[in-house]
Amino acid sequence: MTSWTAWADSQPPLPPAARSVLAERLGPLTPSAAVAVTEAAVRPSRLSRQSLERLRQTVGADSMHTDDESRARHAGGQAYVDIARRRRGDAGAAPDAVISPADAGEVSRLLQVCAEERIAVVPWGGGTSVVGGLDAERGGLTAVVALDLSRLDKLLAVDPLARLATFQPGIRTPAAEEALAKHGFSLGHVPQSYERASLGGYVVTRSAGQASTGVGRIDDLVAGLRMATPTGELVLAPVAGSAAGPDLRRLVLGSEGTLGVVTEVTLRVRPVAVERHYEGWVVPSWDSGLEVMRGLIQDGPHPDIARLSDPDETEVSMLMSSAGRLTRSALAAYLRLRGVSSGCLLITGYEGSGRDVRHRRGVVRDRLRSAGAVSLGTRAGRSWEHHRFAAPALRDTLFDTGVLAETLETAATWTALPAVYSGVRAALRDSLGRAVVGCHVSHLYPTGASLYFTVLAAADADDPDSQWLRAKAAANDAITSAGGTITHHHAVGTAHRGHVRADLGGEVGVRALRALKNELDPVGIMNPGKLLPDPR
Amino acid sequence: MTSWTAWADSQPPLPPAARSVLAERLGPLTPSAAVAVTEAAVRPSRLSRQSLERLRQTVGADSMHTDDESRARHAGGQAYVDIARRRRGDAGAAPDAVISPADAGEVSRLLQVCAEERIAVVPWGGGTSVVGGLDAERGGLTAVVALDLSRLDKLLAVDPLARLATFQPGIRTPAAEEALAKHGFSLGHVPQSYERASLGGYVVTRSAGQASTGVGRIDDLVAGLRMATPTGELVLAPVAGSAAGPDLRRLVLGSEGTLGVVTEVTLRVRPVAVERHYEGWVVPSWDSGLEVMRGLIQDGPHPDIARLSDPDETEVSMLMSSAGRLTRSALAAYLRLRGVSSGCLLITGYEGSGRDVRHRRGVVRDRLRSAGAVSLGTRAGRSWEHHRFAAPALRDTLFDTGVLAETLETAATWTALPAVYSGVRAALRDSLGRAVVGCHVSHLYPTGASLYFTVLAAADADDPDSQWLRAKAAANDAITSAGGTITHHHAVGTAHRGHVRADLGGEVGVRALRALKNELDPVGIMNPGKLLPDPR
Repeated sequence: MTSWTAWADSQPPLPPAARSVLAERLGPLTPSAAVAVTEAAVRPSRLSRQSLERLRQTVGADSMHTDDESRARHAGGQAYVDIARRRRGDAGAAPDAVISPADAGEVSRLLQVCAEERIAVVPWGGGTSVVGGLDAERGGLTAVVALDLSRLDKLLAVDPLARLATFQPGIRTPAAEEALAKHGFSLGHVPQSYERASLGGYVVTRSAGQASTGVGRIDDLVAGLRMATPTGELVLAPVAGSAAGPDLRRLVLGSEGTLGVVTEVTLRVRPVAVERHYEGWVVPSWDSGLEVMRGLIQDGPHPDIARLSDPDETEVSMLMSSAGRLTRSALAAYLRLRGVSSGCLLITGYEGSGRDVRHRRGVVRDRLRSAGAVSLGTRAGRSWEHHRFAAPALRDTLFDTGVLAETLETAATWTALPAVYSGVRAALRDSLGRAVVGCHVSHLYPTGASLYFTVLAAADADDPDSQWLRAKAAANDAITSAGGTITHHHAVGTAHRGHVRADLGGEVGVRALRALKNELDPVGIMNPGKLLPDPR
Repeated sequence: MTSWTAWADSQPPLPPAARSVLAERLGPLTPSAAVAVTEAAVRPSRLSRQSLERLRQTVGADSMHTDDESRARHAGGQAYVDIARRRRGDAGAAPDAVISPADAGEVSRLLQVCAEERIAVVPWGGGTSVVGGLDAERGGLTAVVALDLSRLDKLLAVDPLARLATFQPGIRTPAAEEALAKHGFSLGHVPQSYERASLGGYVVTRSAGQASTGVGRIDDLVAGLRMATPTGELVLAPVAGSAAGPDLRRLVLGSEGTLGVVTEVTLRVRPVAVERHYEGWVVPSWDSGLEVMRGLIQDGPHPDIARLSDPDETEVSMLMSSAGRLTRSALAAYLRLRGVSSGCLLITGYEGSGRDVRHRRGVVRDRLRSAGAVSLGTRAGRSWEHHRFAAPALRDTLFDTGVLAETLETAATWTALPAVYSGVRAALRDSLGRAVVGCHVSHLYPTGASLYFTVLAAADADDPDSQWLRAKAAANDAITSAGGTITHHHAVGTAHRGHVRADLGGEVGVRALRALKNELDPVGIMNPGKLLPDPR
């Protein structure tokens, strides 16, 4: 059985060079070990005998789990503070039961029972929320259960003519891609949580994959869906384009389980790419890199993946990558050649037909070269591709080593981007003291781009939660005051509730969402305490 | 002063060939004439003295119009039944006053006063709704006023780096383009109502322009907006990409004035195109044409404009166009060459940089030729471009001639498209008897496309409204039962209220929208009777 704290079954070792540089940059590190799930402190379930009995009748006894281990394994998601809590054996965030319905009908009936019994429901897909979206908050109700959707894991239908595929929400991305591949199609949605996240989770958190510059966000891929709410089912059939009122699919996107449970989603798919091409580049500076990225996306054609690291992230990613030496030596050679002290790593990626990839790559290469970029070749690109999902497992190694490693993201218009970038960096460094703060731009829009920050610091062994939460609050303040969005692709959860008001359009938008929730979920069972700011 | 019924100051004559063919196809025609606005029957204003006084105090006497002519000129939009009603001198649909606020502050204050006085408000942009969106319904309140936004007509700001422009809602498209051109930018949103429609109207009706295949629907262009509601202002700043809860911009898009009044909109803009290229083609059949269109949009690259006419529309557009002879002779030559009796006209259009247009045009031409298409050259393309806004004025000529001319649109997945196409054609013909029903596909999506029907029949001189409303109801039923959306780009208004339920996700979606409206507009002053279906 896998660990309840680690991302993967095996953890990558830290390259020796990385270990010494981290100690040098971050100061003394205190290694730590994770408490086993069997030793976790779980409080007794608050479910009443009557509630337990009614839930059992709804799904069958085999689908109800009230044992400590099942509950502890659903104690929060993948935020730094979630993992830190579990590593010290604290499963206080565990739900009172874990329920695994077999189908959409059972989901609907469960919501009815939970509303009648006043039980809060936390929909649970891949369990990868990094914003507290899975916190088992009761919201003043009698108890809280995790609704584990892992049994709703089927590809239900493929429409090859319209290039649409209908899935159940609990299917993980690798299984979805495998099922699609039999029909010659691919989803192409590749976030870093790819291996564990569920398609339903992507939808309700408005996920963006690493290739979103080419494929689009999940928002752009959703053509239809079904959502069970405590007061009935919302059924939005796949549509090509429509002007029939507001598009209510967009209300489900980003609803984070606060309105209901997505039980089916129809997504756009594309033929499996014939040609894939990843390439590494070094651009002379962050500013010139941003300028190039903007030109690519505004004037086209552009790569599907375009990921620009700032100097600090460039250095860290070289250090951390097991293929780091290869790329680092290429970078060092380039820097020597240019006589400069730093450069920014840029990864470009193309997926599609041969003709399409050739055309785009040709134009983009011309543009990059005119901007002073130097190619590191396809080995650097393939190295990135090979390690694209490695970061979460590496974080566990860093935990053991005594390093706080966490990420956060925002997005802003090209105009506001530089101020957001420097504001967030300054806030994080001011809060954490000795820290490495790296950043990359990885999702391009004609109007702006995302900024994804990675933070490394010596973990405060006595109070790791407060250490990070202080830094996170400072970053949130900096984002808001510089005009960034509080989250580009990690959603709101509990982590961003205090800062989401502006993104929701102010008090009127918050009232609108609350009215909507009251209508669909009058008892307030759906994922309490997430998304909506506290009433002021 | 312009006519209150005609689209333009001058009406194009009907080509002689068209006149005889129409008589032959449609049967005997009864010419009719339009009653002048000065002869219109307008009932007395229902505004109480107190309401009138309070409204005058809010905006000033010069911005309040209660005279018969101003009110008659706001009696409905541009649907066939709207124009037929006005042509016979019936201004029963007129509001009790027309109010022209000077700025967003006055709009907000007006909504407050109207809520207190229980006066319904119909936001009025370009006045081009063809679905009854401008009907002066009181919704059980004391009176109804048209809120004419024509004075809110400024370009407020341009952000050249992020390629964003902020406009007031009442600006018409030509003025918006002229203002943008001074900054080197263009909006590129080109619906047939281009000359008269307002940008705010596009937003709340989810408009799609003729180049939406390349530029995107207005939904894709809106980055930020402000909306005044009776209970406060919703302020959604421009954002590049976000996961901060549901995107409430999408609730304003398609809200049709039922939640509030858009007072500012920030739209994506692009550099003025260096290269424009329009070309005419003939494809052997409707089915093969659809196949080609699907291939273009799914596999790319694709034109910005791709408009495929079915055989009936191909014939009619040849007849109606004053440049028809040129294109018709080319078509006839092609058909003779191929030894077939019919063909389908296809217009392709490209706008962008020279390199971009050359690349896309090259690939598309290859594909079209492999599908058996024959080029009619750029003259046919330019002829289409020249006449792209001519249809509304031509309809007035047809009115005079005694011809019912109306359009309706839907969209469906590529899979459902053929059934929707044949179902709607059959419904219209069954209802109207002798009629010409043409259709084109003009907005392509990877998942499907729009279908735009044009109907010509001999107008029933005694009861033109019922004649069309019966046919429209039959078409609506056919669309719904074949799985099309009830409207692709004309919105819901009153015309589609009875058929919009499925598009809104069923009863749960309707309840959600109603709850939202009750929250933002508790008195129900905002455009009553539009969008939301009657409670069942």
